[in-house]
Formats: sequence, C-alpha cells, structure tokens
Amino acid sequence: MGQTIIEKIVSRNVGHDVHPGDIVTVNVDRVMIHDIFIPFVAEKFEEMGFQKLWDPDKVVLIYDHLVPASQVDDTRHFHVGNAFAEKYGMKNIHRSDGICHQLMTEALYVKPGNIVFGTDSHTTTYGCVGAFSSGIGYTEMASILGTGTMWIKVPETIKVVVEGTLPSNVTSKDIILRLIGDLRADGATYQALEFSGDTIESMSVASRMTMSNMAIEAGAKCALFTPDEKTAEYCEIELTERETSLKGDADARYIREIHYKAEDFVPVLACPSQVDNIHPVSEWEGTPIDQVFIGSCTNGRLEDLQKAASILRGKKVAPFVKLIVTPASRKIYEQALEDGTLAILAEAGAMITHPSCGLCCGRTGGILTDGERVVATNNRNFLGRMGTSKVEIFLASPATAAACAVAGKIVVPEI
Amino acid sequence: MGQTIIEKIVSRNVGHDVHPGDIVTVNVDRVMIHDIFIPFVAEKFEEMGFQKLWDPDKVVLIYDHLVPASQVDDTRHFHVGNAFAEKYGMKNIHRSDGICHQLMTEALYVKPGNIVFGTDSHTTTYGCVGAFSSGIGYTEMASILGTGTMWIKVPETIKVVVEGTLPSNVTSKDIILRLIGDLRADGATYQALEFSGDTIESMSVASRMTMSNMAIEAGAKCALFTPDEKTAEYCEIELTERETSLKGDADARYIREIHYKAEDFVPVLACPSQVDNIHPVSEWEGTPIDQVFIGSCTNGRLEDLQKAASILRGKKVAPFVKLIVTPASRKIYEQALEDGTLAILAEAGAMITHPSCGLCCGRTGGILTDGERVVATNNRNFLGRMGTSKVEIFLASPATAAACAVAGKIVVPEI
Repeated sequence: MGQTIIEKIVSRNVGHDVHPGDIVTVNVDRVMIHDIFIPFVAEKFEEMGFQKLWDPDKVVLIYDHLVPASQVDDTRHFHVGNAFAEKYGMKNIHRSDGICHQLMTEALYVKPGNIVFGTDSHTTTYGCVGAFSSGIGYTEMASILGTGTMWIKVPETIKVVVEGTLPSNVTSKDIILRLIGDLRADGATYQALEFSGDTIESMSVASRMTMSNMAIEAGAKCALFTPDEKTAEYCEIELTERETSLKGDADARYIREIHYKAEDFVPVLACPSQVDNIHPVSEWEGTPIDQVFIGSCTNGRLEDLQKAASILRGKKVAPFVKLIVTPASRKIYEQALEDGTLAILAEAGAMITHPSCGLCCGRTGGILTDGERVVATNNRNFLGRMGTSKVEIFLASPATAAACAVAGKIVVPEI
Repeated sequence: MGQTIIEKIVSRNVGHDVHPGDIVTVNVDRVMIHDIFIPFVAEKFEEMGFQKLWDPDKVVLIYDHLVPASQVDDTRHFHVGNAFAEKYGMKNIHRSDGICHQLMTEALYVKPGNIVFGTDSHTTTYGCVGAFSSGIGYTEMASILGTGTMWIKVPETIKVVVEGTLPSNVTSKDIILRLIGDLRADGATYQALEFSGDTIESMSVASRMTMSNMAIEAGAKCALFTPDEKTAEYCEIELTERETSLKGDADARYIREIHYKAEDFVPVLACPSQVDNIHPVSEWEGTPIDQVFIGSCTNGRLEDLQKAASILRGKKVAPFVKLIVTPASRKIYEQALEDGTLAILAEAGAMITHPSCGLCCGRTGGILTDGERVVATNNRNFLGRMGTSKVEIFLASPATAAACAVAGKIVVPEI
C-alpha cells in the first residue's frame, strides 16, 4: 500500500514502514531553540543530568522574539544563551539575524526529508521544503539535546489539492487562511497537511512557507510540500529521486481530501479574534484602520515586501495610519535594501524595523490600544496579541495589507 | 556698548536694547510639542479657556518618543494629538518622520534669529542655526499657544572659542563633552553659550547641532552659533547682514570666556552616571561592552552614520555586542539608504531601526539589564535611562562608538 509524505519521511528515519497511529522513536536531524525558551531548556537540560549535547552542530540557537530588547529581563536570556552555547560548544547561534523559522531554511539548516523540532509552534514552517518539523516544549527539547531522539505518533494525512491559476490579487496567504477557515482551528489536530496540485507546483518556496507556517493554526502537526527544482535551488542541493519521491503515492491512504480551484479564491481576512474567522476582504471594505503590519515568519520575505512595494510605489500611507514593515531576516533586509524595495517603502511612509519577530509577538514596535484596528500579515489575531484585548486584528496577505495602508481603510487590493 | 548674540536676538524681537537680567516678553516665532506632552498641553490649553491657537502655522507637533509605540498607552497620545491638531487647524504634524529637534531645523521650521520654544529640554538644539531656542513645560506651552508670547529673563553669555584643527579622531561631540566636563553640569545654568573661532567656523551645521543640543547638560538656557554660508544653505535662505550680524560684538560683555586649542582635544567619554564625568577614552581602553547605540538628536545625522560606516566598512560587529543604529529622521534614513551607508552598517551587523528617539529615551529597541555596559552617542547617561539602574552608560562620539562596536570593548577610534 502507498504512503503519504509524512509516512515516507518517518519510515526512512526509523528504517521500517510506519502507519498512522504508530508510536515510534525518531532520530532528530536538527533542533531550533529561540531566545524566549533557552533559559528553560538550559535549566531542564542540566536538571536531567546530561553532560554534553548529543551533537552541537545539530542545535541552532536564535535570538528573535526579544531583539532588540524591549524589557529589562530580555538580555538575561541572551546571557544565558551565550553561556550555554559556550559551555556545550555550540556554533550555530544567530543573535540578530532574523526570525527563527526564516533562518532555519534560509541558512540551510533544514533539508528535504529531515526531521526537525523547535521550541515554537510555527516550526511547522519547514514543511515548505519537504521536512517534517513541529513545535515542542522545553522539556522535550532538553531531552532531545541529550539523546538526539524523540517519540512521535505517526499522523494521519489530509490531502489538499489546489489546481488552476490564482487571481492576480490572491496570494498563498489567502489560500492558507481559506483552508484554516474551512478546516476550523481544530480541524487538523495532530494530522499532517499534504499540499499538491499545479497551483502549488507553480508557487515559490517563499509562498509555500507562508502555508506550512500557518498549518498549526488548524492544529496540524506538520504541513508538507513535495521537493522540486525550486526547493533544490533554495536548499542548495542537487535534486535526486530521494527528494522527488517525497510525494503522496496514488494509493496512499488519506483521512480526508480537499480540492480547490485556484480561480475560486479571493483575498480574505482572518477577522477578530480567531484565525479561523475567515471572510472575503470585500465584506469589510471601507472599515477604517489605524495601523498596518507587514512582516513575521508568515509574510516577511522578499516577495512579500516586493508585493507591498509594487502597491505602495509612488503612493503615500494614509496620514493617520502607521505602516510598520519588518523583514523576516537580515538577508532579506539586505536584498530589499539592494533592490530598491526598502527605498520605495520608506518613501511611501513605512517605518522599517530591524528583522525580528517584532510586532507579531506584541512586545514592541507598534503596540496598539483600546479601540484600534490593525491589518497584519502575521499568523495570529488572538485577543491581546498586539496590544490590549480591545484591539481588533485582521490577518491578511501583504497585498491586502499594503492596499489598506494606502487607503486608510480595509480595501480589496487591485493588482 | 556691544551685544552678545542672545542680546541681539532678544533686542530685535522686543524692539529695544536689552541687557542680561532684564525680564521681557517676547513674540514667539515657532513652538514644538512632542508626543509625550501633547495630552498635557491640550488639557492645559482648554483649561486656560483659549478658543483658538494664536497662529496654527507656528505650531509643530511631532511624534517621536513613542514611535513606534511600545506601551499600550502610547497610541492614546497620538489620538489626543490628532484630535487637537484637527480641532485647531494645525497642519505641521509629523507622525513618524524622526526626532523633533532634527525635524525643526531640517524641515525649515527654524531660521536664524528666531525665538523658538519646545516641550523638551534639548530644544537648545536650534542655536546651531543662530536661533534662540529653549525647553519649557507644558503649562508655559499652553500659554504660548493662546498668546504667542512668553516671558524670559535675558541670560548672561559665556563665550567659548575653539581655534585650530581637530585631530582626525575627534568630533564636535568630544568638544561639547569636554566643555560640559569643564563647566560641570550646573556650570552654565540659565546662561547662553556662544561659540566662535575658526574650528567652529569650519564645522558643518550638523556638527554644531551636536553641541547646541548638549548645551542643556551644562544647564545652559541656549547655545548660539553665528549664521554663515553653511547655515544659509542648510536653512535655504539668502545670507544677508541680518544673519551675519548675529555675532558677539568685540565690546560685548561676557560673564566668562573659555578658549580651547583644537589640537588639545582627544576622544572622550561621559562616564557613568553623570554627563559631566568626562574622561579620555584611552583611560577606559579595554573595558568590555555589551552594546553600542548610534543615534538620537545628538548624533543620529548623516555625517554621524557616515563616520560610523567608514569605521565599520568591511568589518563585523564583535559577536557578543549588539549595535543599534537609529537615524535621526526619515530624510537622513533615506539619504543613508541612497548613498550606501545603511548597506555598510547592515553588512557589518548593525540593527537599523526606524528614525525616532528609540533607545535614547529608554523605552524600547535595546533595553539593557543589570551589569551591562553600553557606549552610546546620545546626550544623557543618567541611571536607568536605557534599562535598569545597574546599567553603565558611556556617552561618546559616533567614531568612538563604532570603533567600540568592532572591538567589543572600549577603544580609541583610529581614523
């Protein structure tokens, strides 16, 4: 009987065929720890009595949520992280290079077929290159650091097929938001999403990343894309049968199949204050806004900034609206600086910040107050995430966000 | 008998000769209010029963300390400011264009000979173009908004002469720090500083701005430079006798004269935790640091960023050190983006933020913790200003700051 992508990845890892529901112990290829959790991971690791890391090269430490520090306790996390890294001989440390999930793929820590865990729920992101990746807690992370292994239950798989040509004002963000709305926030709990179809095939790795990033918002354990030439170029590998075979077999067993025609998609919003409260942008057209945020591990990549710049070029942000742009990594920042994207955004009136999680995690850089409304490209619109609990957060694509910034209200982007 | 610059400005304004100690009522040319004080100014203004602004065009409202918002109450200030500006027909509003003092001169709100007040102690800055400017409280500001007038006591003047050629690694920041150290923090209380000499004449307006900005740190009411061709170019005016005559007369009466030879200056630091605790950088050479901040209304201008870039070009910030760069205005940001300065800084590892007060006012963007040490180009190293009260702040020039960022410790810049 055929296999889904997640079944293939786990089977290869453990050396025998696995089936949904099997509980197996996998060998971990990489782990990612970010600045918020490093103190807890370090404490647990020593409490568990480990003397050394199972493989220092496989551990990546990234400072992103607290960079630049906005609270007096933040830099303590950096000091703990630096001391831990030094004590155990870690070399893969990023102190101000961008957001963890962006760096894990961009800096080539993750390859197709890998099994990767991180201390962050959006670790599902690396499925964009065909890796099984998922978020874990700090106790589990401490255990992996000592053993290099982790138990998992093999997930069932939901097959999602998108075919056809997307309308010009629709992006992969609109697809994943629509899917989350259709599945609901708990609709894929502990299941793998597996994407296919010619619409998916024609997407950039960056666009796929937006979708794997948000899979967790439907409860998914992971979200997988079959590696192709674009993946190989992105990951700087040669594409072999080992990668291309990471696709769902024709006779694989899926717990559910969902088919979309690309032409049916429209720009959508995740409306306050649930990620699965999805409505067409047109339903909210004309609603005044106070702020726009373009950034995050969901939509802070070069193509996202370029899309925003194409809408903002020669225009100005509406006078009362604040537009905050946060590239997802230092590399993206430098590329956007080099190719003129940052200049266009700055000229339009954007506030461009250093690459980090920034406003997405609500610690700094544009905190909102009671009664304010923000259109944002990140992945969660929960109460209180970007200011007080009386802030309304609308999640959208970079195209929609940029169009709203110019209009000063919610509008459907015209491209 | 001759007059000093401040005596000339006030005499012209009131229409008769004034002398130090005279209490007179002046007509105000411009006022500046920033985001922190606008709610208090607005409340006082209405409490005083005024129905309209004396002249809406002469009032400038600038959001800078709270941009981008880092606390949930911040945006309330913007809403109050926006409502006040709309109600009273104000047009001169800057919502995210940079730091108030930079914008007041850069955006041509201040001309030589003007009398200007602002709700910020560093309003002394505009003396760089030969304007009498000083900081006031919000009650006084509310009164000016209604009346267009303000009482002042004509200050005594201290004459400061600098002649010769500065060493290549010395900037105007080192001069003003040395002067503050020599005068002490209360050494010029309610007095005017008046700068002259060929070293001063050869300085850019930007360099002079650093000095007038920090005059308040010796208690000075204002700090004045004679307008010249450079001033005229900067202010976009034609230079006439009206401007060039704004110099101290040979027979003017000074309460004190201080003469420096430019060659005697060395790079200096204001050491923890007083602005007048001045020591040569060489005395602290080798002291490890955690962070460097290049920005503020004191030293966030293009020449400052260029100076830093000239030191950082092709080098990297020391691994454990965080370098935060905050241009003083959107215009400077765009110029630095255009001329490649930002690219050099980013490549070296700097975190570049949106133009604002940023870390200088200690609200966000690199807050420090107990035991940490920062070299910063701003104007105050008071306890707790950039984090906890156990942070050590060393004030320095951009050249010194950049050199320290590369070395990871305090070093004398080599240029």
